[in-house]
Amino acid sequence: MIGAGNLATQLGMALEEKGHQIVQVWSRTQKSATALASKLNCPYTTDLSFIFSESDLYIIAVSDIAIASVLSNRNWDDTMVVHTAGSTPMSILAPFCKNFGVFYPFQTFTISKRVDFSQVPVCIEANSPLNLDFLKELALSLSQNIKLFDSGQRQQIHLAAVFACNFVNHFYAVGEELLREKGIDFDILKPLILETASKVVDQSPVNTQTGPAVRNDKTVMDKHLALLEHQPDLQKLYEQISQRIIQTHK
Amino acid sequence: MIGAGNLATQLGMALEEKGHQIVQVWSRTQKSATALASKLNCPYTTDLSFIFSESDLYIIAVSDIAIASVLSNRNWDDTMVVHTAGSTPMSILAPFCKNFGVFYPFQTFTISKRVDFSQVPVCIEANSPLNLDFLKELALSLSQNIKLFDSGQRQQIHLAAVFACNFVNHFYAVGEELLREKGIDFDILKPLILETASKVVDQSPVNTQTGPAVRNDKTVMDKHLALLEHQPDLQKLYEQISQRIIQTHK
Repeated sequence: MIGAGNLATQLGMALEEKGHQIVQVWSRTQKSATALASKLNCPYTTDLSFIFSESDLYIIAVSDIAIASVLSNRNWDDTMVVHTAGSTPMSILAPFCKNFGVFYPFQTFTISKRVDFSQVPVCIEANSPLNLDFLKELALSLSQNIKLFDSGQRQQIHLAAVFACNFVNHFYAVGEELLREKGIDFDILKPLILETASKVVDQSPVNTQTGPAVRNDKTVMDKHLALLEHQPDLQKLYEQISQRIIQTHK
Repeated sequence: MIGAGNLATQLGMALEEKGHQIVQVWSRTQKSATALASKLNCPYTTDLSFIFSESDLYIIAVSDIAIASVLSNRNWDDTMVVHTAGSTPMSILAPFCKNFGVFYPFQTFTISKRVDFSQVPVCIEANSPLNLDFLKELALSLSQNIKLFDSGQRQQIHLAAVFACNFVNHFYAVGEELLREKGIDFDILKPLILETASKVVDQSPVNTQTGPAVRNDKTVMDKHLALLEHQPDLQKLYEQISQRIIQTHK
């Protein structure tokens, strides 16, 4: 396991749980390397040239920008190498490896929260049918939800996730911040957040849109914009997103 | 029940389920009046002057902008009157009613999806301690989660909900739209959407932020901005929200 961040941690633990053995952890920093190695009961190194060669698979789970430098600092021989990044094409591996692919579990990972992989879509891609079969088998040991996507599709999926997960989470934080201004606990938002998410399991989000913008309720929107006068960046976002909702539902 | 929209429908059905009797439905249009009246097994009218006077409570569940006109077109005598709007102060009722308050179930409602009220925070406010007790009892028959907030707090709660629910839902729709561009089904986003929401039940959303912006990963963000070139409004939102995440986590 090359990397010891959120994804490396959750993927490593899930693989071990399913009977795979993580033989070694590499990380740039000693601190994160030891943290993950202790969770996986395996040795670690912070030196790329000390990575064991007796492995069936190298999983490069570092940030997109670090992939190239990891790849170029070691000889990978014939062993299968995957990266786990949404927005980096598979082709980045071609100059360095003979057998390679992408193993992209499509979920949000934090170090502290265990993830149930059984429902996680695992997006795979490989440079040969044989290598694809290898990754398919590995993916199926974790999840029933395997997807074959090329690098262009995967990048678009990642982009969609930035809106539907990362920006969504930031708007939860905005909600928390706005409530704190009036001394109100974030707890009050939780039933609403869960209901909003669970609604789109059965329906298209276009059909579940509620709120002042979809009703084009200018009275309420003007009141909200006035409340945001001291936060011009939020005021601007409020205006633009409301406009987009109004346009979508015109 | 004065109104027959999303909130009126879900609140009316929840009240009946708990043994309260909705004696009559009023709506501006015959179509929505009959639809709700048939769900609640009660008569309806589209004429405010035909509203029965033998009721313990009038629930005004119309859009914020329609509240004043509903109020001014009938004599309310001594009967308790509440509105259900987040961003309209209780004081709007004062010129028209002797006994009044606000009954604001803090949830997103659509006509087609039943809501379990037991976890819904019900925000109440009244013009006297006696009337507050009356609303408290009513609220407790629906939910264990009763909150006493004044009109200023309620408005801020509503504003927080626009970000954490309405805008969030629109970003689910943006995700769906981006996937459709590449022929990918929205289903792939669902585990991510549910996990993102469930994470903030136990943790502050500031601590669950993931994605390229919180890592300040310019390589990925630039790729995403390039993918959004044909959608300048989304490109602008992507840039602004990423900046806000970067600032928050600096």
